[in-house]
Amino acid sequence: MKGFAMLEIGKVGWIEKDKPVAGPLDAIVRPLALAPCTSDIHTVWSGAIGERHNMILGHEAVGEVVEVGSHVKDFKPGDRVIVPAITPDWGSAEAQAGFPQHSGGILAGWKFSNFKDGVFGEFFHVNEADANLALLPDNISPANAVMLSDMVVTGFHGAEMAGVKLGDSVVVVGIGPVGLMAVAGANLMGASHIYAVGTRPKCVEAAKFYGATDIINYKQGDIVEQVMQLTQGKGVDRVIIAGGNNDTFSQAVKILKAGGTIGNVNYLGEGDNIKIPRVEWGVGMGHKQILGGLTPGGRLKMEKMASLMETGKLDTSKLITHTFYGLDSIEKALMLMKDKPADLIKPVVIIEY
Amino acid sequence: MKGFAMLEIGKVGWIEKDKPVAGPLDAIVRPLALAPCTSDIHTVWSGAIGERHNMILGHEAVGEVVEVGSHVKDFKPGDRVIVPAITPDWGSAEAQAGFPQHSGGILAGWKFSNFKDGVFGEFFHVNEADANLALLPDNISPANAVMLSDMVVTGFHGAEMAGVKLGDSVVVVGIGPVGLMAVAGANLMGASHIYAVGTRPKCVEAAKFYGATDIINYKQGDIVEQVMQLTQGKGVDRVIIAGGNNDTFSQAVKILKAGGTIGNVNYLGEGDNIKIPRVEWGVGMGHKQILGGLTPGGRLKMEKMASLMETGKLDTSKLITHTFYGLDSIEKALMLMKDKPADLIKPVVIIEY
Amino acid sequence: MKGFAMLEIGKVGWIEKDKPVAGPLDAIVRPLALAPCTSDIHTVWSGAIGERHNMILGHEAVGEVVEVGSHVKDFKPGDRVIVPAITPDWGSAEAQAGFPQHSGGILAGWKFSNFKDGVFGEFFHVNEADANLALLPDNISPANAVMLSDMVVTGFHGAEMAGVKLGDSVVVVGIGPVGLMAVAGANLMGASHIYAVGTRPKCVEAAKFYGATDIINYKQGDIVEQVMQLTQGKGVDRVIIAGGNNDTFSQAVKILKAGGTIGNVNYLGEGDNIKIPRVEWGVGMGHKQILGGLTPGGRLKMEKMASLMETGKLDTSKLITHTFYGLDSIEKALMLMKDKPADLIKPVVIIEY
Amino acid sequence: MKGFAMLEIGKVGWIEKDKPVAGPLDAIVRPLALAPCTSDIHTVWSGAIGERHNMILGHEAVGEVVEVGSHVKDFKPGDRVIVPAITPDWGSAEAQAGFPQHSGGILAGWKFSNFKDGVFGEFFHVNEADANLALLPDNISPANAVMLSDMVVTGFHGAEMAGVKLGDSVVVVGIGPVGLMAVAGANLMGASHIYAVGTRPKCVEAAKFYGATDIINYKQGDIVEQVMQLTQGKGVDRVIIAGGNNDTFSQAVKILKAGGTIGNVNYLGEGDNIKIPRVEWGVGMGHKQILGGLTPGGRLKMEKMASLMETGKLDTSKLITHTFYGLDSIEKALMLMKDKPADLIKPVVIIEY
Repeated sequence: MKGFAMLEIGKVGWIEKDKPVAGPLDAIVRPLALAPCTSDIHTVWSGAIGERHNMILGHEAVGEVVEVGSHVKDFKPGDRVIVPAITPDWGSAEAQAGFPQHSGGILAGWKFSNFKDGVFGEFFHVNEADANLALLPDNISPANAVMLSDMVVTGFHGAEMAGVKLGDSVVVVGIGPVGLMAVAGANLMGASHIYAVGTRPKCVEAAKFYGATDIINYKQGDIVEQVMQLTQGKGVDRVIIAGGNNDTFSQAVKILKAGGTIGNVNYLGEGDNIKIPRVEWGVGMGHKQILGGLTPGGRLKMEKMASLMETGKLDTSKLITHTFYGLDSIEKALMLMKDKPADLIKPVVIIEY
Repeated sequence: MKGFAMLEIGKVGWIEKDKPVAGPLDAIVRPLALAPCTSDIHTVWSGAIGERHNMILGHEAVGEVVEVGSHVKDFKPGDRVIVPAITPDWGSAEAQAGFPQHSGGILAGWKFSNFKDGVFGEFFHVNEADANLALLPDNISPANAVMLSDMVVTGFHGAEMAGVKLGDSVVVVGIGPVGLMAVAGANLMGASHIYAVGTRPKCVEAAKFYGATDIINYKQGDIVEQVMQLTQGKGVDRVIIAGGNNDTFSQAVKILKAGGTIGNVNYLGEGDNIKIPRVEWGVGMGHKQILGGLTPGGRLKMEKMASLMETGKLDTSKLITHTFYGLDSIEKALMLMKDKPADLIKPVVIIEY
Repeated sequence: MKGFAMLEIGKVGWIEKDKPVAGPLDAIVRPLALAPCTSDIHTVWSGAIGERHNMILGHEAVGEVVEVGSHVKDFKPGDRVIVPAITPDWGSAEAQAGFPQHSGGILAGWKFSNFKDGVFGEFFHVNEADANLALLPDNISPANAVMLSDMVVTGFHGAEMAGVKLGDSVVVVGIGPVGLMAVAGANLMGASHIYAVGTRPKCVEAAKFYGATDIINYKQGDIVEQVMQLTQGKGVDRVIIAGGNNDTFSQAVKILKAGGTIGNVNYLGEGDNIKIPRVEWGVGMGHKQILGGLTPGGRLKMEKMASLMETGKLDTSKLITHTFYGLDSIEKALMLMKDKPADLIKPVVIIEY
Repeated sequence: MKGFAMLEIGKVGWIEKDKPVAGPLDAIVRPLALAPCTSDIHTVWSGAIGERHNMILGHEAVGEVVEVGSHVKDFKPGDRVIVPAITPDWGSAEAQAGFPQHSGGILAGWKFSNFKDGVFGEFFHVNEADANLALLPDNISPANAVMLSDMVVTGFHGAEMAGVKLGDSVVVVGIGPVGLMAVAGANLMGASHIYAVGTRPKCVEAAKFYGATDIINYKQGDIVEQVMQLTQGKGVDRVIIAGGNNDTFSQAVKILKAGGTIGNVNYLGEGDNIKIPRVEWGVGMGHKQILGGLTPGGRLKMEKMASLMETGKLDTSKLITHTFYGLDSIEKALMLMKDKPADLIKPVVIIEY
């Protein structure tokens, strides 16, 4: 079978590989819809997770089951499924402790295009199929559903970690696709004021659609000053970090109330340290809680998120700005992510309707 | 001053009383908008809290501060304020333990028309004004805001106790004003399927507006059977009880998944015991958690809820089916609550715009 | 192989069965130490879980691995292991939701001597070995460790559900082995006053050893009165139910403060309903939270509990009042549990040192 | 009256002031036992909270009520009371949000020797007496009880924030009096392995008494390496920071498991930023949660902690290495804290038995 792969750091291309084989708990799936992710860009061009040779890329997919292992009970060939980016080993100590995304080691629940071939091939392998696949509901299109694999659950996890409660004020830093889903997640969890930090018109429009009440343009002044002015000097209850730069944590601490929480879902790609400003962090005693984590993944999360789409409470279509057709066009879609034109939020590649 | 009072069990009328006096932390407020509550009906005609003589009724009010105590810092005469039904003693052990509504004893954070005169008078007294009043935002009408005193925070507390999480399925039993706000609360906290149990067309319409995805008509069959059928035998993640009868807890346990939670906000007026069905409760080991509680009250809750209205994320106007004008009409509004015509959700009495 | 089985309701005996077979994730284990449990008595003589034919009994074991499936990574023949009574399917939706004990359905994480043969045989089968077995530390004897399978984690789970916090006052109803471990769990979680309800001198002595500060003898008067007197009418923060009768929940609600929590770990064997007293439950609004649940089981729990023993912070030896030797003596040990002499806490059967 | 005061940064001395006056909710107290704190040293000699003129020092006291305000209900002159270092405004928004220690602004629940005169005088003023004082139980000496004001609740708060659960492994960095109480708190909450980092023999001995299972001597090698070796490369579940230097947070992140939590109670006196190592923090996604906070203070906390002493579950006497007599000796005790001889844990000044 063919797949679109990272050949080495900085280099991509089509390669031929054997069709993957299912162990007793696993499934082999062929893609119906795929999406490239900024992490794919980091992986290839920044070498963020280190050197990889001829590893098929991609971790966002909706597909059709073509084969299942001997001990798979809930899925059979022909089933249309949502595939989460994170596919934990559910029996691991970390999963038993409530952190499946770190099963087997920190971040090790992320397997696609990290430890094994990803989803940008004619077929791909899913570990623990019963625990990691979810049936695609009839009334959700593969294109809209593929946003669930990573964008929705990652953005939402920012809101979950930040602990958004009814009536809370929230700042979301970054309004790319994950940031937009952080806005949507905060909104779905009951935030009142949602201050979204970003500038691109397409993203700003989507942010408002997803529940942002105020847009903060970082080009028009310091974020901290703008937030403090809008909140009469009080700051906010929660900050979700889904973008930004090396100063973002510092800003986040400064705009947070004592007792507030930061939820980071931004992949921090550079630098040795994140810096927490000592004084504004209450000289260590301000109860400004700092959380950051990978989305949990797995079947149940996919099912719960799909149920939000089924009931019309979540509409992911506003994320999709570019649509391609056919597996071959995954290359074009990926390069679009790399080039990041101003009107891009997220591209999707449809293999089959 | 005059006030509309419970004279004794079963008997109401206008009485004359001295204008209340503010202690150092207190405020005296005159009403701008008032609403009667089903509890007022219970208090008077069922004698639910025992005998009371010449106690002014009412605990839902928006008003104007007319006088403040020597140690009040944040409010002054002329301020327009939202007054919560529950006005805790914030220094009490119970409040320090996280349960201000039980400050000084179980349910003792509820003072208006329980331990002291209520709000249906020319003036009323508010304890710990800085901690229990909230400024009325300019863009919210007193009529809409008076829904915050009790209806919104009580319904929402059901959703809070039930622990609604993103994508959860929820049953709300009862779609009177509190049940409708339980629907809205569950929806704002991220529920997907919300099964609302009720029949009156006006309420059904409002339930759909507030986020119900399915309506369960208890006249058309057993609730348990209907829910189990709609959920393919799985049951739901959360049940909020905001109405029903002696069998409701039993039904709630039966439709709840293992690991799910019941949040009760229904005032249970009758019978010696609530019955929990042993087998369906997992012979004591099913992790079907049973919570029930009075809304916390206080200033912060009012401010957070008001911020949801300010940002357009909560619209209480659909609750108000009947509007009266002038303090004198409180009697008519109360009797309407007592008679409960089919098209009633909640009446409001506007004293001043 | 032979095993000691429930032949039918009310009848036990030795039977011959095929040695169990390991699937790819499973292990076959032979016992080193076993203990009978009150549930075995309920299962056989009360028919508590319904009719069972020729089902080998027992769910408390420490053993030696004799065979592992093709996909087992962490265990090999010869390993000495602690076997939890509850062995969940870790990939199930319920486990992903945080309730592994209900994997596949309410209470369905309990498999031994419920859905499949138990541990009272020459060999027994353990599903998902990597996720459900824990290595026996060198410095813990099989006899002491077998208390971890069920007694320790069940009693402790009562304390966990009750949410014991530093300085809390706790009532523990029942001081059989589970109740004693509830006392120990509450004590290890930081309870101050622990009021243990029981009478048998051997149990009273052990309760004091495990942290009980006061013993309440239900034969010397009403529990409610005694607790209220000892607490100057305030009641307690937490109640753990590990014994008692049909009135226990009613008593628990009455002695609990508003905002307190009940954690039930008692198998409720009789009656249609548990009764919650309406008035003392705050007419539904007193925030007296009622929880009840099966212990979670699994490997991590066993490892954490074993680490408490390794560090000398938990000593289970005080639970063991009777020791037997050899698999054959399991019958005698079980009948001892059935007869429950006054000096019995828990018997252990040692197969091999 | 006279008091021992900070005259300006770097300078202390006895001054004369008017006896403080009680507002309606307040009390005036005279000390029975006092203790100086490292923060007093920071305040005076590092100018940690900025310049202060003629401010009486001290925030750890047990005393006797000599006067109460008109609205104080639960205390009267002659009552012997424990006085917490943190005396919040309980009606504030922050307290309503669950963070009383930040009432009125970050850290602003700390009033003694910060915003107002401290306890090192003939008399001192306590705001909201009913909410902030606790009766001294008869069987606890003032000297032992004065450890509750700050040392116990600060150390314990580290364990609370770190979220210690049954069987968790914990590192405590620093074994001065707060660190020792962090060890005790972790132990009381059910930790198994407690690795205490420190060197002074007196402190090491006390650490073992309070539940440390292993002592890590930072002079004998890198903390990170030592912990990783002791834990077979796994790291620990929780880290409590109660000492250390600018590298401590970095070390804490490195020795923490994914999903673990840091609880900081160390007053961070220097530097612009705390540094969080990017890679070991899981490039932002490792769920290594970073919390830091001031102890909550207030009456309920004091009562709960006192109940641990009353029941013999907490013995603070091991903290007290030096005892002085008479108010005048407060100067000597403070200078001892400044000089920090090797055998010092904590000095106490007894004014009256």
